[in-house]
Order: sequence, then C-alpha cells, then structure tokens
Amino acid sequence: MIYWDHNATTPCAPEVVEAMRRYWNEEYGNPSSSHIMGRRAAVAIKKAREQIGNLIDCHPSEIIFTSGATESNNLLFLGILLTPRSERNQIVVSAIEHKSVLEPARLLKEHGFEVIKLPVSRTGVTDIEAAQNLITEKTLLVSVQAANNELGTLQPIEKLADIAHENGAYFHTDAAQVLGKVPFDVQSVNCDFASFSAHKMYGPKGVGALFVCGGVRRWPWTRPFRGGGQEKGLRPGTSNVPAIVGFGEACRLSKNTMTDNNMYLKNITDEFMYVLQKSVPDVFIINELQNSLPGTMSLLFPGISADVLIANCKTINISKGSACSNGVIGASHVINEVDIEATLRDSVIRISFGVHSRAEDFQDFLDVVKNLKQKVGRSEKSSI
Amino acid sequence: MIYWDHNATTPCAPEVVEAMRRYWNEEYGNPSSSHIMGRRAAVAIKKAREQIGNLIDCHPSEIIFTSGATESNNLLFLGILLTPRSERNQIVVSAIEHKSVLEPARLLKEHGFEVIKLPVSRTGVTDIEAAQNLITEKTLLVSVQAANNELGTLQPIEKLADIAHENGAYFHTDAAQVLGKVPFDVQSVNCDFASFSAHKMYGPKGVGALFVCGGVRRWPWTRPFRGGGQEKGLRPGTSNVPAIVGFGEACRLSKNTMTDNNMYLKNITDEFMYVLQKSVPDVFIINELQNSLPGTMSLLFPGISADVLIANCKTINISKGSACSNGVIGASHVINEVDIEATLRDSVIRISFGVHSRAEDFQDFLDVVKNLKQKVGRSEKSSI
Repeated sequence: MIYWDHNATTPCAPEVVEAMRRYWNEEYGNPSSSHIMGRRAAVAIKKAREQIGNLIDCHPSEIIFTSGATESNNLLFLGILLTPRSERNQIVVSAIEHKSVLEPARLLKEHGFEVIKLPVSRTGVTDIEAAQNLITEKTLLVSVQAANNELGTLQPIEKLADIAHENGAYFHTDAAQVLGKVPFDVQSVNCDFASFSAHKMYGPKGVGALFVCGGVRRWPWTRPFRGGGQEKGLRPGTSNVPAIVGFGEACRLSKNTMTDNNMYLKNITDEFMYVLQKSVPDVFIINELQNSLPGTMSLLFPGISADVLIANCKTINISKGSACSNGVIGASHVINEVDIEATLRDSVIRISFGVHSRAEDFQDFLDVVKNLKQKVGRSEKSSI
Repeated sequence: MIYWDHNATTPCAPEVVEAMRRYWNEEYGNPSSSHIMGRRAAVAIKKAREQIGNLIDCHPSEIIFTSGATESNNLLFLGILLTPRSERNQIVVSAIEHKSVLEPARLLKEHGFEVIKLPVSRTGVTDIEAAQNLITEKTLLVSVQAANNELGTLQPIEKLADIAHENGAYFHTDAAQVLGKVPFDVQSVNCDFASFSAHKMYGPKGVGALFVCGGVRRWPWTRPFRGGGQEKGLRPGTSNVPAIVGFGEACRLSKNTMTDNNMYLKNITDEFMYVLQKSVPDVFIINELQNSLPGTMSLLFPGISADVLIANCKTINISKGSACSNGVIGASHVINEVDIEATLRDSVIRISFGVHSRAEDFQDFLDVVKNLKQKVGRSEKSSI
C-alpha cells in the first residue's frame, strides 16, 4: 500500500509508539491525582510540555493541551463568542482557511460578528495588500493558517501578524500543517495564539495544543470549557497522558530530523515532478513548490476527474484535498478560491509525500494516469 | 505499587492495548479520507461504535465520540448556551455532580439561566422528593450522574428521568463512573443524553462519548463545535482512531466480564471492610456499600487528616476524592454536601478497588493507619 496523503494524517514514528508504550498499563496514573502514580504522570506531561515548547520556542506554560487543532481553533473562537462584546467585532481570516477556522468564524457571524475573508493569489498566497486595507482598528482577531492543507502553500504569517498588531488586533495561526515539517517558532511569527495537531507530524491522533502567548493568565476571553481545572482551567478533562507523551516525543524527533527530512522530501518531489512532466506533459501544478510544504503537490490532470483518478489508484492513497472535506461534491472551497477555470476544478488532486515515500512507487501512479489518459483519448476519438 | 484509585483512572486492559496496536503505524489512515486506508479506518470506527452501542443498548448512530466525559458534558451545556432562549430556562443538577457538570452549569448561570441544585442524603443519594418539587415546566434539562465519583453512590436516575420527562424536560446523566462497571443501558434509564469516558473502564485516556437519543438529527441545540464535519458535524476533528478502537474493545470486554468482576469486587470489599473494622474500629463508612459502585469506599478515620494519610501511603495510591479536584484546600464539594460534622470532613479518603486489587495488600494499608493512630494517641496523651 502506497500512502501519499501525509497532510491528512501520518503514521506514528516508532519512537513515538515506544514512548507511549508504558503509559497504557504501567504508568497509568491520573496526573491530577496527588498520589505517587499521579505525580509521576504529571512529570511525564511536564516533560512533553517542555519538548513542545522547545520546538516552537515558547515557555512550557504557554502550551495548552487539547485533542487536536480543530479543538484548539474552537477553544479560541468560542472564547471570543462568550466574551462580552466590545467595539472591535471584526474577525479576519483567509478565504482558504481549514474548515475548523472557517466554520467557527461562521458561528461568530451568526452571533453578530463581522467576518472578513482575505483573498488569495493563484497559488494560494494570502494577499498582503488586501490585508492592509481590510484589517482595521475594528479588527479583534486575524486568523491565517501557517500553511494551507490542500495546496501546501506557506503563508506570510509574520507580515500578517505585524499588520494585525499595528491595528491592535490579536493574531492566531492554525499551524497544524507546519509543526515539525518546516521551521516554525512563535517568537519569529510573533503570534498570540497558534493551533497544533500531533498526528500531522508522526505523533498520535487525538492530541494537539493551543499556544497562548503569556499562558493562561493572559487569556483574554471567557473560558468556554469548564470542569476539573486541568490545563490551568482552560482545557479541563483527564489529561491524555500517553498521547501527550507521544506528542512530546514527536516534537523532539522532528527537531532533530527536520533538516534532513526536508532535503529528502524536496529531492523526491523534484524527481517525481521530473518523471511526471515527462510522462504526462499536460499536468498542471497549482502550488508553487518553492513556497510550499516540502512534498505537497496540488496537481491538475486535464480531462481526468479527481474522483475517477482516486478510484483507479487501488494501491495508492491520494486525495482530492482535505480529509475534513470528504463528501463534498465538486471542488473544495480552497480550489474554488484560487484562479482555476471552473471546468478544470474537478480534476485537482493532492499528493503529500512523507519520509517513507519512495521513488520506486512513482511508476504505479504514472501507469494509472497514463491508462486513464488513453481511455479519455479513446472516448474523445470515438465521439468525433 | 498498590493502586486503589480506579475511580480516578484505570490501566488499559491488555486486550485494549493489543486492539490499538496496529492503528499507530500500520492502519493509520484518516477515516475521513476517501482512499482505501481511510475507508479501512472508517470500518474500524464503525465496529467500535457498534461495540459501545451493544453495551449501552443504543443504535451506533446515537454515539458521538469525544475526548472524554468532560468534553461530552461541555458539548451539551455549550449547545444549550448557544441556542436561542425559550421560556424554559432552568437547569437542574444534583449538588454532588462532577465539576464537569457543575462548572458548565455555572457558565449557564452567568449567562442568565437559573441553576437549581438537588440536595442529597447522608450517603449521597439525590433526594427524589426535592426533585419532584424543584423540577417544573420551567426546567429545560435535568443532569444527574449515574454514580458519584467520590462516594460511589448509585443515583436513582430512572426515577429522575421520569420526573424530568413528566415536566417536558430533557434528562442527561454523566455515566462516566458506571460504564462497564455496573449494568447501564440508555433504554432502561430512558435518558436523552449520557456522557462516558473510556479510561474509567480499562480503556484508553483521551476518548469518550456522548449518547444522543435519536442521533445527531435529533440534537435540539446549536452545534457549539465546528469544523470538518466528523461525527455528523457534532464533534469535528480528525477521529482518534486507535483510542476509539480501544474504547470499543473495552466495552466488548466489560460486557463479557462485568458479572464476574463485580462479584470479585464485592467479595474483596467485604473482606477489606471486615479486616479494617477489626483493626480500626472507629473507621466510619460514608457511602452505603450495597448501593454503590462495587469496590468504592468513602472512609473517614477520625483524627487522621486525609492529606497526612495519603502522604504516609508511600506505596499505596489512594485519594481524597476526585482527581479533578486536586489542589482544593479542605474537603471537596461532595463531602461538604453530605451530612458529616465539619471537623471530620478533612479526614475522608476514597478507596476504589479494581480487578487487580488483592487482599494481600490490605496489611500495608492497615499498618499505615495503625501507625498514624498511635502517633495521634501519643500526641493526645502528651498534650494532657
């Protein structure tokens, strides 16, 4: 089975599985318990918090563990929603945010906030000039992803954070796609909030974090989740110790291997594009590979529907776009925002390589595409 | 290390660890992906949903996976909070609910709802007569736990559900402490909503569920969490496949072993109480063992502070009460609600046995208690 959908999710690294192992039924204490097993679990969580802080260059107390980036985004937007209103009631997002930002933003809109969407370029880069015009002293929060999940496009978040701050607004970035893949630290970006998921970076599913600049005592909103006071009251519920330990280990690993992995992913992507363009000259690349997550390609095969291509890739796991948009008829909101002829949008697929992707698998994919192109050619001929 | 704090959390059963194993880095697909590995992950989740439905006697579509009971409770209460108000604005809870119900209820109160707390008896049983008087046609939701986490006391939830329904209110039960431990099914209780956590029943941390009678299409509130549409839109975010598989396996296991486990826990508890009362005649049992979770004892040792006892139990993990109330100075809200003399409340500890608890460990605990009693005796003598 060939897996080329690493932006949807990744396998756990063996080191991550090993790090979690003893927390299932040896060190299974509840870190909120005051007894010895509880305290030992709390130490494990402290270490993981440090490992994550070490990767993104923040103080461990600024890390709030959640079940993943979707929850982190919801925590932020629900906090805003439940806080008494001020004059600032504009939320600015990019038009191609992940649904876990766009949909909570829509909830805010339903409750009277003004939601403004920043346009993007043909390759999915957020328009800075538009941001300068649209972010104003009425803006409460600017939320732009660090990299787009479908296109891989890296966003100019440092500049956007500056524009937000110049206008007195908070800046949040959904960094689920960049953590552990490309250098990302909260000091350089100067963000107030950032969302992460472990399972996009060879960590376990079911765990993530919200970075809160200054920690919980600087949280400016109402706390939407209530309970037993875990995560300093911002995210209650028994801590998911094994997954948090695995998340910490994934961060430690990625800090050590990121440079090498990126070199590998860039090389294998170049090699793939070379053989692909030779075999299928009319393939169109939507994203700009130099300004994208290494290994992520948004490809358009004219005349071949993405659904048909995916269905024919029996041993190759590729996708139309976000797993979170599965079931959507036609092109995703991301593809609809970038400047692609409407008749071609249904032919866009995403390939996202990972560290286990191999050049020897390229031919299987090329065979599927060439086979489909021949069928399309035959049917076009026969219809003349 | 002796672990007698199973109401805080439990180790994963070996079968649960084994069931999760291949989902870390073999079957790691995202169940929202339309490709083969995604579809295989979706099949695994379907099976788990059936296993849970099988244990609590509901249709699989009525199970909404969450990160645990705290999130399930918050999902329900936030849904109510975000829904346009009606004449019904009373929320009725028992006075000894877990904080993940009491605190969200407090949030509703801050936003204009009336929150009514039902009193409990000396052993922690919710007062049915009070419920009959306090639940009215103004009541929107009644939320009473199936068993109290600190006392183990089983609540008359069937009767409370009837009273709620007679008044046109919804009934919710936080069933985190009963699932897999004592028979519980949503048909007998006739509840509209129920919250669960896997880690209280030998499943993994970081996963739980909300039962929604009739499934998501019968969800009567605004959806507070927004994103990629997972769990039919009620709980978005990449599904935590390994943990969900583990939760399903824990449910399957408990269905097969519950009767035997309960017999074992009842016997070992009887045996423990016999030797404890013989060694420490002035020990006071707060809960009524016949109407409690098997293996849960709320004990009061006059003259010995719970904090001191716990600190002296160097190889025995016991607790003062809820792990989620760790850091609370003095007695918990539960102990303050039951009729115990104020000067004695700081001396209450909770022991919750599990299937691995052994009679050969009793003596270690008795030695600690007797040792502390002697010290107390000596200091009383010397102060004469």
